[in-house]
Amino acid sequence: MSTTLGSVVEALGGELVGEASLPISRLAPIASAQAAELAFVAQARYAHQIESTRASALIVPPSLQAVASARGACIVTDDPYLYFARLTQWWRVTHAAVSKPRIHPQALVDPAASVGSGVDVGPFCVIEAGATVADGVRMGAHCTVGAGASIGADTRLASNVTLGDHCHVGERCLLHAGVVIGADGFGFAPHKGRWIKIEQLGAVRIGNDVEIGANTCIDRGALDDTVIEDGVKLDNLIQIGHNVHIGAHSAMAGCVGVAGSATIGAHCTVGGGAIVLGHLALADGVNISAGTVVTRSINKPGHYTGMFPIDDNASWEKNAASLKQLNRLRERLKAAEQAIAQAMSKQE
Amino acid sequence: MSTTLGSVVEALGGELVGEASLPISRLAPIASAQAAELAFVAQARYAHQIESTRASALIVPPSLQAVASARGACIVTDDPYLYFARLTQWWRVTHAAVSKPRIHPQALVDPAASVGSGVDVGPFCVIEAGATVADGVRMGAHCTVGAGASIGADTRLASNVTLGDHCHVGERCLLHAGVVIGADGFGFAPHKGRWIKIEQLGAVRIGNDVEIGANTCIDRGALDDTVIEDGVKLDNLIQIGHNVHIGAHSAMAGCVGVAGSATIGAHCTVGGGAIVLGHLALADGVNISAGTVVTRSINKPGHYTGMFPIDDNASWEKNAASLKQLNRLRERLKAAEQAIAQAMSKQE
Amino acid sequence: MSTTLGSVVEALGGELVGEASLPISRLAPIASAQAAELAFVAQARYAHQIESTRASALIVPPSLQAVASARGACIVTDDPYLYFARLTQWWRVTHAAVSKPRIHPQALVDPAASVGSGVDVGPFCVIEAGATVADGVRMGAHCTVGAGASIGADTRLASNVTLGDHCHVGERCLLHAGVVIGADGFGFAPHKGRWIKIEQLGAVRIGNDVEIGANTCIDRGALDDTVIEDGVKLDNLIQIGHNVHIGAHSAMAGCVGVAGSATIGAHCTVGGGAIVLGHLALADGVNISAGTVVTRSINKPGHYTGMFPIDDNASWEKNAASLKQLNRLRERLKAAEQAIAQAMSKQE
Repeated sequence: MSTTLGSVVEALGGELVGEASLPISRLAPIASAQAAELAFVAQARYAHQIESTRASALIVPPSLQAVASARGACIVTDDPYLYFARLTQWWRVTHAAVSKPRIHPQALVDPAASVGSGVDVGPFCVIEAGATVADGVRMGAHCTVGAGASIGADTRLASNVTLGDHCHVGERCLLHAGVVIGADGFGFAPHKGRWIKIEQLGAVRIGNDVEIGANTCIDRGALDDTVIEDGVKLDNLIQIGHNVHIGAHSAMAGCVGVAGSATIGAHCTVGGGAIVLGHLALADGVNISAGTVVTRSINKPGHYTGMFPIDDNASWEKNAASLKQLNRLRERLKAAEQAIAQAMSKQE
Repeated sequence: MSTTLGSVVEALGGELVGEASLPISRLAPIASAQAAELAFVAQARYAHQIESTRASALIVPPSLQAVASARGACIVTDDPYLYFARLTQWWRVTHAAVSKPRIHPQALVDPAASVGSGVDVGPFCVIEAGATVADGVRMGAHCTVGAGASIGADTRLASNVTLGDHCHVGERCLLHAGVVIGADGFGFAPHKGRWIKIEQLGAVRIGNDVEIGANTCIDRGALDDTVIEDGVKLDNLIQIGHNVHIGAHSAMAGCVGVAGSATIGAHCTVGGGAIVLGHLALADGVNISAGTVVTRSINKPGHYTGMFPIDDNASWEKNAASLKQLNRLRERLKAAEQAIAQAMSKQE
Repeated sequence: MSTTLGSVVEALGGELVGEASLPISRLAPIASAQAAELAFVAQARYAHQIESTRASALIVPPSLQAVASARGACIVTDDPYLYFARLTQWWRVTHAAVSKPRIHPQALVDPAASVGSGVDVGPFCVIEAGATVADGVRMGAHCTVGAGASIGADTRLASNVTLGDHCHVGERCLLHAGVVIGADGFGFAPHKGRWIKIEQLGAVRIGNDVEIGANTCIDRGALDDTVIEDGVKLDNLIQIGHNVHIGAHSAMAGCVGVAGSATIGAHCTVGGGAIVLGHLALADGVNISAGTVVTRSINKPGHYTGMFPIDDNASWEKNAASLKQLNRLRERLKAAEQAIAQAMSKQE
């Protein structure tokens, strides 16, 4: 499928430099773009790519208009990366296969569930009694919507998504394949060397415009609910423990684990593989680096890291061995300092 | 739904202080509890919460009876946390929707499978030939029970659980959504730059009273079986490699990885995101902190940790850079110590 | 089921020492092997196990032939581990239950999908319009093959596998339960404190002879495709971000995360729980230790590590506290060295 540069500008704005009729068959990264493809340059430091790209047209900021238009067509806009994001959305909508929403005959919708209009339910889905599915919701094959659960308007579930009993997902959310919302939180009371289960009687409440990556899990609360606020973005294979609270517009990369009852502020980011221990609080605007274990609450916005620097293995072995002596080294240094002070005082 | 304080004590014991007819509509955390809600205080250090809570009744230890009863009703018991755990179980049972167990007409049960009485099989489940499902087993939608696999009495599988061929799960277990038991272990022989697959001919054997979190994976053994003993509790998104052996009543938090042939003792705990390398042995009663990589066997019970302490990023950068010089610093310190000794001997 | 030692040698080669008619009922680890079982010893350092094993026969290298044949039957081969790998494959094939391939009547195959001969499709699978499934493909229950996706000959999907629209899997691949291929990459443009979704318009292309572990996720590319080359082996619960490129015959252990646009060479290995940050390049033949965070590109083959060494918790606490002073210690050491130099110059 294909469009023209003029159609793009008509839909999304920006200043068109060049022929509106220029055909655009694909969006492409600037490095690999070919003829009839549209690429973007977000920052002046990538300006050197403009000369070598084969793209037929470029999306550029005003500062690059001169160099870009010297070589061919371009769209000038203040924030090319944002423009590009909106362009992908427009591209998806205009190029998507159109299918009429329907409840697949092989889906099982309990008569005591409430399903809105324009809802698409894939084959082998199960929607249980008391569940509420709002208008425009779409779900792929093999999804389960538990008893009393609810899904807000225009939310999309990919295949194999499990939404537990009485859990709520807001509007315009996107849950990828294999997501599990509302499994039991990990709660046990120790008793004579055994673990006595604490039934998890809370649920999960997810706000609007939340995206949740494939096979990510969000546990239900023990008594109160686990809460994910509006606009949160979670990547794949993330574990969110019971009674966690994630503030609006925070984002987490893949393989993160957040232990029970942690409270994470708004506009935070957590890097891949990081672990946040339980019962901690992170202020708004905290950025945690990949691979970091957060062992204490953080009250100030900022960038925090705890990660052993990578090295060739032989060097690592030496430094790691020394690290196990570090406190001892510190004491030896103190002793050396005192000896020096003593020696110098004698010299005087 | 609702109960009374007297009904709670009748069911679970403890000493009732106050009106047995007091209505209890919900269990709640002490900090957010409201009227007609029941909360617990496990330890004297949370005693300050007793005065400010709005809960109608409290579960307290004998040491807090005086302060608790001064403000209202309470249940006195030696171990409030254990009491609370049992209370959640009682609450779940008494408040659960009662449905008659049935094999859903859209489930596929092979005629050569054996299914006990009182078994509940959700829609779109598949139970293959030679599988054995004991009395009282319940499974949600989209589960697969492989050929020759077996499930002990009263075990519950949530939706989307995969139990591989010839694998065994014991009695009263709980497997959450997306759990995969019995995928192939990760075994390959290197040969001329390629990996030659070692077929995994063992299975998985899981004891009684085991709980396994959402999307957790336990691989089948290469020749012998992977074994999970009674009472083990695994959180979500945990990877257990082939031929691992986990001793009774050990517990692991989310995102843990245990590599092949590791042997973990009984009554161990492993914190979130920790990694246990293959072919290691951990004694009974070993506690591993979150984020720790276990690179050697541990023969003594105790608490073990290996984790770079979190810091603000600027401080971390400086210390991480110095860390890569640490062995060199150690040598410089040694040289300084020698120079001091030499200088002091000259002074004498 | 059972075979004979002679049948093994007939099928797989090697030099038979002993009776060809010796019955073999099972392959077993040397330590736990019993009568009528066949075990292997790959290396001379395990030679001490030969005397104590109860195995009826052993697979050994030429260097161990004398000691092995002194106690009983054996198969002599240059690479016993490789022989063992092939033996497990032969065992699997000769002992597998034979079932005729069929499209299960409860599977949904779109009339506009193309399905080859000898294909086995499990119950409740969904194969969408435009999908291509080559000859000899087998898939378990509850798989989803998206619109326009394709699967090469003789590839096997376990249950619950999701293959997204327009994604491609090569020949002779094995995808374990819960694998998700082609969920959206994690891409958002920040705008006024919110995240604007970048639609992921690329796909995933997977080569031949690739194995992918349970619940592992491989995201589709943003514009270009995510690419996994021939012979790659991925363990369970691995996250592969959008536009990642993994070179041929690389292998990764469980719980690894690879962030977007990372390029990993051929013949690399990545240990469990390691994280590779985005937009990095790893040369061919790079080995990353478990738990390591790769924060920079690596241009030379070799072994790289970054991991805080495990210690008893009390020692760790002291060293971790000193670590946060490390840069300061380095400065103090420098000052001490200068003081020493000064003092010594005065002495002369």
